[in-house]
Amino acid sequence: MDIYEILVLNGPNLKHIGVRQPEIYGSESLDGLGGLVERLMGPASRGVRLETAQSNSEGGLIDILEDARERKISGVVLNAGAYTHTSLALADCLAWIGLPCVEVHLSNVMARTDQPLRQTSHIGRHVVGVIAGFGVLSYALAVQALYQHIKHG
Amino acid sequence: MDIYEILVLNGPNLKHIGVRQPEIYGSESLDGLGGLVERLMGPASRGVRLETAQSNSEGGLIDILEDARERKISGVVLNAGAYTHTSLALADCLAWIGLPCVEVHLSNVMARTDQPLRQTSHIGRHVVGVIAGFGVLSYALAVQALYQHIKHG
Amino acid sequence: MDIYEILVLNGPNLKHIGVRQPEIYGSESLDGLGGLVERLMGPASRGVRLETAQSNSEGGLIDILEDARERKISGVVLNAGAYTHTSLALADCLAWIGLPCVEVHLSNVMARTDQPLRQTSHIGRHVVGVIAGFGVLSYALAVQALYQHIKHG
Amino acid sequence: MDIYEILVLNGPNLKHIGVRQPEIYGSESLDGLGGLVERLMGPASRGVRLETAQSNSEGGLIDILEDARERKISGVVLNAGAYTHTSLALADCLAWIGLPCVEVHLSNVMARTDQPLRQTSHIGRHVVGVIAGFGVLSYALAVQALYQHIKHG
Amino acid sequence: MDIYEILVLNGPNLKHIGVRQPEIYGSESLDGLGGLVERLMGPASRGVRLETAQSNSEGGLIDILEDARERKISGVVLNAGAYTHTSLALADCLAWIGLPCVEVHLSNVMARTDQPLRQTSHIGRHVVGVIAGFGVLSYALAVQALYQHIKHG
Amino acid sequence: MDIYEILVLNGPNLKHIGVRQPEIYGSESLDGLGGLVERLMGPASRGVRLETAQSNSEGGLIDILEDARERKISGVVLNAGAYTHTSLALADCLAWIGLPCVEVHLSNVMARTDQPLRQTSHIGRHVVGVIAGFGVLSYALAVQALYQHIKHG
Amino acid sequence: MDIYEILVLNGPNLKHIGVRQPEIYGSESLDGLGGLVERLMGPASRGVRLETAQSNSEGGLIDILEDARERKISGVVLNAGAYTHTSLALADCLAWIGLPCVEVHLSNVMARTDQPLRQTSHIGRHVVGVIAGFGVLSYALAVQALYQHIKHG
Amino acid sequence: MDIYEILVLNGPNLKHIGVRQPEIYGSESLDGLGGLVERLMGPASRGVRLETAQSNSEGGLIDILEDARERKISGVVLNAGAYTHTSLALADCLAWIGLPCVEVHLSNVMARTDQPLRQTSHIGRHVVGVIAGFGVLSYALAVQALYQHIKHG
Amino acid sequence: MDIYEILVLNGPNLKHIGVRQPEIYGSESLDGLGGLVERLMGPASRGVRLETAQSNSEGGLIDILEDARERKISGVVLNAGAYTHTSLALADCLAWIGLPCVEVHLSNVMARTDQPLRQTSHIGRHVVGVIAGFGVLSYALAVQALYQHIKHG
Amino acid sequence: MDIYEILVLNGPNLKHIGVRQPEIYGSESLDGLGGLVERLMGPASRGVRLETAQSNSEGGLIDILEDARERKISGVVLNAGAYTHTSLALADCLAWIGLPCVEVHLSNVMARTDQPLRQTSHIGRHVVGVIAGFGVLSYALAVQALYQHIKHG
Amino acid sequence: MDIYEILVLNGPNLKHIGVRQPEIYGSESLDGLGGLVERLMGPASRGVRLETAQSNSEGGLIDILEDARERKISGVVLNAGAYTHTSLALADCLAWIGLPCVEVHLSNVMARTDQPLRQTSHIGRHVVGVIAGFGVLSYALAVQALYQHIKHG
Amino acid sequence: MDIYEILVLNGPNLKHIGVRQPEIYGSESLDGLGGLVERLMGPASRGVRLETAQSNSEGGLIDILEDARERKISGVVLNAGAYTHTSLALADCLAWIGLPCVEVHLSNVMARTDQPLRQTSHIGRHVVGVIAGFGVLSYALAVQALYQHIKHG
Repeated sequence: MDIYEILVLNGPNLKHIGVRQPEIYGSESLDGLGGLVERLMGPASRGVRLETAQSNSEGGLIDILEDARERKISGVVLNAGAYTHTSLALADCLAWIGLPCVEVHLSNVMARTDQPLRQTSHIGRHVVGVIAGFGVLSYALAVQALYQHIKHG
Repeated sequence: MDIYEILVLNGPNLKHIGVRQPEIYGSESLDGLGGLVERLMGPASRGVRLETAQSNSEGGLIDILEDARERKISGVVLNAGAYTHTSLALADCLAWIGLPCVEVHLSNVMARTDQPLRQTSHIGRHVVGVIAGFGVLSYALAVQALYQHIKHG
Repeated sequence: MDIYEILVLNGPNLKHIGVRQPEIYGSESLDGLGGLVERLMGPASRGVRLETAQSNSEGGLIDILEDARERKISGVVLNAGAYTHTSLALADCLAWIGLPCVEVHLSNVMARTDQPLRQTSHIGRHVVGVIAGFGVLSYALAVQALYQHIKHG
Repeated sequence: MDIYEILVLNGPNLKHIGVRQPEIYGSESLDGLGGLVERLMGPASRGVRLETAQSNSEGGLIDILEDARERKISGVVLNAGAYTHTSLALADCLAWIGLPCVEVHLSNVMARTDQPLRQTSHIGRHVVGVIAGFGVLSYALAVQALYQHIKHG
Repeated sequence: MDIYEILVLNGPNLKHIGVRQPEIYGSESLDGLGGLVERLMGPASRGVRLETAQSNSEGGLIDILEDARERKISGVVLNAGAYTHTSLALADCLAWIGLPCVEVHLSNVMARTDQPLRQTSHIGRHVVGVIAGFGVLSYALAVQALYQHIKHG
Repeated sequence: MDIYEILVLNGPNLKHIGVRQPEIYGSESLDGLGGLVERLMGPASRGVRLETAQSNSEGGLIDILEDARERKISGVVLNAGAYTHTSLALADCLAWIGLPCVEVHLSNVMARTDQPLRQTSHIGRHVVGVIAGFGVLSYALAVQALYQHIKHG
Repeated sequence: MDIYEILVLNGPNLKHIGVRQPEIYGSESLDGLGGLVERLMGPASRGVRLETAQSNSEGGLIDILEDARERKISGVVLNAGAYTHTSLALADCLAWIGLPCVEVHLSNVMARTDQPLRQTSHIGRHVVGVIAGFGVLSYALAVQALYQHIKHG
Repeated sequence: MDIYEILVLNGPNLKHIGVRQPEIYGSESLDGLGGLVERLMGPASRGVRLETAQSNSEGGLIDILEDARERKISGVVLNAGAYTHTSLALADCLAWIGLPCVEVHLSNVMARTDQPLRQTSHIGRHVVGVIAGFGVLSYALAVQALYQHIKHG
Repeated sequence: MDIYEILVLNGPNLKHIGVRQPEIYGSESLDGLGGLVERLMGPASRGVRLETAQSNSEGGLIDILEDARERKISGVVLNAGAYTHTSLALADCLAWIGLPCVEVHLSNVMARTDQPLRQTSHIGRHVVGVIAGFGVLSYALAVQALYQHIKHG
Repeated sequence: MDIYEILVLNGPNLKHIGVRQPEIYGSESLDGLGGLVERLMGPASRGVRLETAQSNSEGGLIDILEDARERKISGVVLNAGAYTHTSLALADCLAWIGLPCVEVHLSNVMARTDQPLRQTSHIGRHVVGVIAGFGVLSYALAVQALYQHIKHG
Repeated sequence: MDIYEILVLNGPNLKHIGVRQPEIYGSESLDGLGGLVERLMGPASRGVRLETAQSNSEGGLIDILEDARERKISGVVLNAGAYTHTSLALADCLAWIGLPCVEVHLSNVMARTDQPLRQTSHIGRHVVGVIAGFGVLSYALAVQALYQHIKHG
Repeated sequence: MDIYEILVLNGPNLKHIGVRQPEIYGSESLDGLGGLVERLMGPASRGVRLETAQSNSEGGLIDILEDARERKISGVVLNAGAYTHTSLALADCLAWIGLPCVEVHLSNVMARTDQPLRQTSHIGRHVVGVIAGFGVLSYALAVQALYQHIKHG
């Protein structure tokens, strides 16, 4: 059975998932992600190995992604936080490293219509797909979708 | 075990999924959705009963959704196609019927940056979340996410 | 005494006035419109005969209006709902059928400043006037105003 | 029987209603407003007492409204003329004095699509509702609507 | 001699060509289209068979076009009326059904510069070409151009 | 039989039709226009006499058009190339010389959505109609339409 | 010989012409206007009688103009200062009082390209013409032009 | 010891500070400003003499400022209320009278992101600095800052 | 007595002043300009010598202006027609040749609010001033103003 | 007496305050901030303890603020430099860490109207207030205001 | 050794390089270009033969470029001056003639942020590259770059 | 002979020049820059000493530039990658450190018209000039241009 190495990468203000504004982002931390993936995927979950990383810095995220490319990681689940909307450099990085990537968000970003900037995404054009609005479950669904995409896609 | 009735509702130009521009939307039809949901959700899939509907008409979709509200459907997986970007009336409908809804798209709509209109979503502010870019798998992931949302959320 | 046939026409999501989001639109249904008109207009109310119609569909509303033109209806009280802001086709219809029309809204649409689209009106340029913000009373005031307009105007 | 004191307040270029561009605004003056209200409201018209005021000055209108607040006027029928579209200060005033207000216009301002500025309203978000397009009748309908709003609303 | 089946499809407010605002759209009806095509094309007109359809509804037009695709119609002459400017769904339909289509308009839409929306076209990017401004003759020229395009193009 | 003198006028980069980017504009030159008009119009083609002119210069085109006005040319088929989108001076010229004009384009300009400027037309408001997308056939259709317009219109 | 009564009306911050920012507006006051007009117009200057007024208030300027209309003033030379760019109410006033008006500015307002707002004019559409950039001479030229316009125009 | 005369000038809707919408603007009136300045500045407070003025009118504020220039006031603490965002005339006034001015606001205007107009400031380019968000304390801080600026700056 | 050589330069579509759309531009030709200048300026008119030139071409106008610079012409009265709004090259030319220039227009261009492009001026920032709206008199006033500017300014 | 720990945090290009473009930002360094605060606040200055930090990196500033939250710092005086206008991530950080923050700027940023981007602030909506334009004194006033806000607010 | 014929083509207002606004564009003329190229390229300079041309006219530049295409010139160094920003026709010309072209500017056009139009380039999408800001040296660097591009690229 | 120390500084995603998307950026690495400079500049190349640096982080680039200022580097060749378009902080840095800087790009950024953001440059206003589109040769040309600028400029 092939094992896919998947990098779960979080951007700015996402070091403290579960603590940060729980009324928006939920109170679950990423600690339970492994179990959630198992529950969701069943035996197939043995085909993925997760590693997580986080950086508050735009350049730091690019460093991590360039490193992931060199280590030949299978795919990336990326929550770029606010950089989703402002970082052209991160978008350029996804464009060139060539790793399949699924964009995730804890909350439903499309619903934050009070800030037009949050309706735009620089990185969206360089990802396989987007999953947003399901709290930590977004990540588990993304792992599952990425697994399907790499295996069958 | 509770059974959740989930309406999978497709909008304009989605009557022929699998046939329409397969290079963009993939060549799978919705016929295999049931099996895909089973494979994805395992035994939990017995907790959902799917029904599907389609209309090319903005008003027709509202009729179906108002009917679903009266029949007390548990939730909706909605691919509103082009109406996602142009229909304020459909958005108003989601706002008032009060059913949990997950927005899906076959392709990664955020990547179609040649048409700014496709970057905007009227219905996004009235859904639980969005899943886009995984072909028919988007629907299955949405059923799963909606199931979790209704059961635990 | 002349009797004026007035069509009270409602657009999308207005089949259930009084039930839909009562905190925004009020809890009165259109059933009491006749009585309200009588109370408002007194004996003059005998000069108007009301008929009501509703459609969730943009094309359906045009069908009804074209039919009203052929039947030589005296005037129209129109709440086009969300189509007020998106339907150029409905505006074109009002422009050519030549019936005097009063635009009504249950709520004060100018106050919904969170959505700029709701500040624009396609149909506004083809109506006699606008009455908005008084719940079902808006309709009664519109009947009265239309009556004055047709009789004296 | 309660008597409601209603201030009918006119803004710039509205001192000469009936004389100013009658092809747009009609040739009736406000002198007949009392009679028109009586005809429209019947015996209920005895429940309202009208006073009128006018100023060409933005600050003058605020002075009058602040004074109305101190005198505990029941409500305001306001035709702010061009200040409708340019005066944030007048909007702020309505926001804080807390008197119910109905916005009126002689002509159908939504139809003047040659000037985009006339499509925007600063004061619209701070009023109960809007009545436009019926000449001096707009004022009478507004008095009636305000009476209903204060009494029942 | 090959016979080409051509669908002449009209959108909203075009059921009454010749009656609707004749000062803009002319007073000829579509009844004479056959004769006009004959006069224009001469003997070549025997190579085309025309059928006409009309719907006021966006979804209805898509239904007709999807049906035309299944019936293997040779090409479409389409006057989408106001949906030209607002319907992304209709544009999507043209994109996927794969039938050659010529866009027509009775009046010169580029000249209606008072409404910027009328300067934009959603469907323009999915048609072979555009013919506008010649009244019912626009349709005949479009039939002729479509005939040339299918035969030689 | 009346003979109509028609000026076929080409703007910048149109001296070498048939050679310039044939994948966009086709490989036919204007040399065959006479024959094409004959084939299209049959005997009626004897009622038109064509003359052609070209200039790469905005001012040069205005000089030619002013001269055509003095020579009392019957009408103009104009492909203004890029000046369609940038030349207000050419538009002013069409407005005042008073000759009926049909705008033509070799390619379907509405489909070039990558450049918004190409969606706008300065001259469109001063022409009878537009024919675009049919290569050199556009010119022949325009001659035919102009002939009809002058004779019957 | 007819005598034309001309009102020279100044708006906000123009009470101190000649003192206010002389590097922009020049150091001449309006005191010499009479002499300048005489020098410019020669004997014809006896046909005009000038009166001047100033107000810092938008409403105050409207009051003055409405009064001028009642007094049947022949024409107005108006420097509305910053209200040129922000006052829709003043524009409405010019539209209805029906007096011929020439807009003047001390400095060349078109050259102040650092502030886009100064490139727009509300009142420009309701005046005979504009004269800007010549300091106090602008006023004298305007008197002369207005004299010609009233006498011959 | 030099005494600096400082004018504390308030614009529209600021006559009733402490009473107007206290949930936004706080419930302190300006009466305590003197004491607050003393507490903040200590003995240095003896170097400033405060006078206050208020007008609801744009022109009234300009009158007061032009008068302050003639009286050689040392500096101005200005809360222009809504005119901050709409009055170009007031900005022009500050530009020419040459008095040092500090802009103050009771609430944090930058946080009112629901109204884009409130994010713009006409007067901001003509003041020394801005202090916003601290209720009546904003005024005291501004007096202190202005004192420092005049004395040392 | 110094004689000032003044070039009156006209741009596109201005070869036929008096003939072109007289309802907009008036029916006077430029032939009477000399007499009009004499009448306006009296004896001072002997201090100016007028020469006129016209070109329909943007580059042609620049050629003429560069030549005027070499011939040391005293000043320019320029009606650039539509190039006023579209020609950055002409603006650059005025910027570098260093001749005093007055911009003129026959009609009141600010009043043509149906076309926003006509509200912008590229050349306005490089001229002494603007005179618009007085027909051929605009030119005479401009000669007079330019004479004053060169002599005294 | 309570002691409040206040973090004075500087963003990009603010490591060398006093050296960097002194004509814009002044020549005082932050070294004298302590003394300035003492002079300004008098004995009350003993109630605050200042610590300063600086980073040129957006992520670095977030790291520092998240750390401040964990160390339970009392409040923050933040000069985010250019990140004020571009960093949504920094704004998100302020939103969730929950520390009271005062935004400061050395220069009057509202006056830099040549760059529209500098008129927008991402962080403004998440701060107590703003103080700008007073050089290093801005920081001292901010410490004082923050002290008042924490103590009394 | 191959000799490359390179056309150095200048647009409007560039006939007098070295004389025109030397504070912006420098005081060197193009006369020294040959020597500068020799100094820069050394012996390799013998591989290029330069010819220069200039026109103030948009159409004139297209004429020259079309001629260069027929003469099989090797490449073009183009300073289109203001037409860089306004001429779509020139851009179309570069697109079809197929000659390698390097865009040059004497000054750093990106720094002229006071005029947004100068930030856009129509021709930029049809050139190999851009060199701007080095005065006449820009041309020499462009010759060198073009030589490299043709020889090796 | 003076030796100029030149810093060649690369921004995000430029660590792997030659490997990253070679179809856009070319397959040459920066390793050969020294040789290329020698070939281009000949003996003059001995007058420059190159050092290279790279950072994926906006703040990291500012750190390097501030350090270069302290080390009194002669000039900078800067490829800021995506930060060219998004980093106001980097622009501020160039503004204050006072080192001459040439902006370079491997590809012709003006040609990437699918993304408007790439048409804007924050740093362009603070550099001597720009060289784009020549792959690694852009760097060599920039070194040469910078050398000329420092030595002669």
